[in-house]
Amino acid sequence: MTKPVILTGDRTTGPLHIGHYAGSLANRLAYQDSHEQFLLLADTQALTDNAHDPEKVRRSVMEVALDYLAVGIDPTRTTICLQSHLPALAELSMLYLNFVTVSRLERNPTIKDEIRTRGFGRDIPAGFLCYPAAQAADITAFKATVVPVGDDQAPLIEQTNEIVRRINSTANRKVLPEAVAVIPRAGRLPGIDGKAKMSKSGGNAIPLSASPDEISAAVKAMFTDPNHLRVEDPGQVEGNVVFAYLDAFDEDKIAVEELTAKYQRGGLGDGVVKKRLDGILQELLAPIRTRRAQLSKDPAYVLDVIRKGTEIARDRTNATKREVVEHLGLFRL
Amino acid sequence: MTKPVILTGDRTTGPLHIGHYAGSLANRLAYQDSHEQFLLLADTQALTDNAHDPEKVRRSVMEVALDYLAVGIDPTRTTICLQSHLPALAELSMLYLNFVTVSRLERNPTIKDEIRTRGFGRDIPAGFLCYPAAQAADITAFKATVVPVGDDQAPLIEQTNEIVRRINSTANRKVLPEAVAVIPRAGRLPGIDGKAKMSKSGGNAIPLSASPDEISAAVKAMFTDPNHLRVEDPGQVEGNVVFAYLDAFDEDKIAVEELTAKYQRGGLGDGVVKKRLDGILQELLAPIRTRRAQLSKDPAYVLDVIRKGTEIARDRTNATKREVVEHLGLFRL
Repeated sequence: MTKPVILTGDRTTGPLHIGHYAGSLANRLAYQDSHEQFLLLADTQALTDNAHDPEKVRRSVMEVALDYLAVGIDPTRTTICLQSHLPALAELSMLYLNFVTVSRLERNPTIKDEIRTRGFGRDIPAGFLCYPAAQAADITAFKATVVPVGDDQAPLIEQTNEIVRRINSTANRKVLPEAVAVIPRAGRLPGIDGKAKMSKSGGNAIPLSASPDEISAAVKAMFTDPNHLRVEDPGQVEGNVVFAYLDAFDEDKIAVEELTAKYQRGGLGDGVVKKRLDGILQELLAPIRTRRAQLSKDPAYVLDVIRKGTEIARDRTNATKREVVEHLGLFRL
Repeated sequence: MTKPVILTGDRTTGPLHIGHYAGSLANRLAYQDSHEQFLLLADTQALTDNAHDPEKVRRSVMEVALDYLAVGIDPTRTTICLQSHLPALAELSMLYLNFVTVSRLERNPTIKDEIRTRGFGRDIPAGFLCYPAAQAADITAFKATVVPVGDDQAPLIEQTNEIVRRINSTANRKVLPEAVAVIPRAGRLPGIDGKAKMSKSGGNAIPLSASPDEISAAVKAMFTDPNHLRVEDPGQVEGNVVFAYLDAFDEDKIAVEELTAKYQRGGLGDGVVKKRLDGILQELLAPIRTRRAQLSKDPAYVLDVIRKGTEIARDRTNATKREVVEHLGLFRL
């Protein structure tokens, strides 16, 4: 029995934070046993909206790799690989661009949203508009059938499958499998300021490498219920970041339910719940921080992990490219 | 003294015809001595508007290679290489797409024209819209500074140079050279029916492999001056295909001038000029046809030429890609 292939990864635009942990890293630890997992350091994709700052993209490759290893990704069970060093991904991307129309790319809801968010206006980099085809290349090159995505990314998997169907129909056989989008039950973690998206550039994230003081300061600054002025007042947990984080990280679900009820009823101060959250985050991040600090003293080891994983991935993706080219009936030397 | 690098080539969508000979092949024979010449069998680009028929694109690779060798392209002086087997071209294409906006691609006059010609309407394949970035990759990967193009293709070289300037400015050094478009003095040869474009699909081309009878039949069917009904009538040479071809292929320029004057004055029948043209085309194509027939019996040799040229080109284009990646400061394993 071969395990199903899962492809996931991160754009290398900065170190990862606890939002990544809750949304994806924790799941990836579990997938190491149940799936054949490939983790893509997506530096090529990071360039689609960071072409002006390649240095940031470069620097972040090691940061993200350190984060992976620090949280417990095991390179003997998960293949960590570097997107820019897998030429088959670029080759398949260029091929797939012929199987999708410009208007279809423009209609993609994820792309429409992201163009708005990034404020590109009319000046959308072509690489950004085209990245769904590149993502289809990533997914299919590994023949991944399981792709964990944020809830806003599901249309990208639909687009991948459209391309898969067009390739298979042109080749007149099932060369590539379709993929299933897996949307994690835990929704997206808000920033500590209550904004929907936690991001390093937004200054509202707790990085995985945060020091004990940084964690405590972040928890202290955390957005709660601005109308919850006195301890005895009823408090609101909707939009309350502390409760969102307790939901995500506190393993004692019954205790969280009780705290939630008490907070809503009145009689529970922010200080108490913040103290609890602080303890939980300190406990979660301490071993990650320690391991990350150790690993960062041994960049040669980290490089070696990336290099070996990329070699495995190169063979895999080249094999798929050859298959696609052959079954489409293109010229082979 | 190193020779300047010239990049040229053909989309592999069918065997070449005498329009290619007049417009580019004849010049390439001369460039073999003066330039370091790379000839690209552009199968990847052919797919941008032929994704539905990869078999045609595949089959045409050998046809075009046979045409090259048959007209006298010498693989020891010109590197013949296969686009789809040069991964650096796809990698650079994907990179360059981040340095050009969608609206810039849409404003490209060549692309606008071709979208109209091909009747894509709203359903433009993304690969087709993006092919100027792919062409920039082709040109820069070889560091070509001279690029022969049709008069309608000059805007593509301008777009290439825009990308080159953006790469150089991001890298803060001159990583890539700009290219100069060379537009052959001989204009585009019309089809035998008088239509502006000669093409196999238009059924108005004389392929390089045409038999003596096919040549004669094509010359006989050739569009002249529909109002030139009697030998003694003045005839028109504008739009007259026979005179366009004499201009292109008759080496006795003085004789052509005299014939032109006589035809315009009246007293020269179509039959006479057609007979002269038939003789010239028979003489031009006979050795090409013979050599092509010989070569087509030895596909292993032709394959070997493509394979060796592609290996040379692979080293060259990979080296450029590494340089670009390094100077942009991207991650290198």
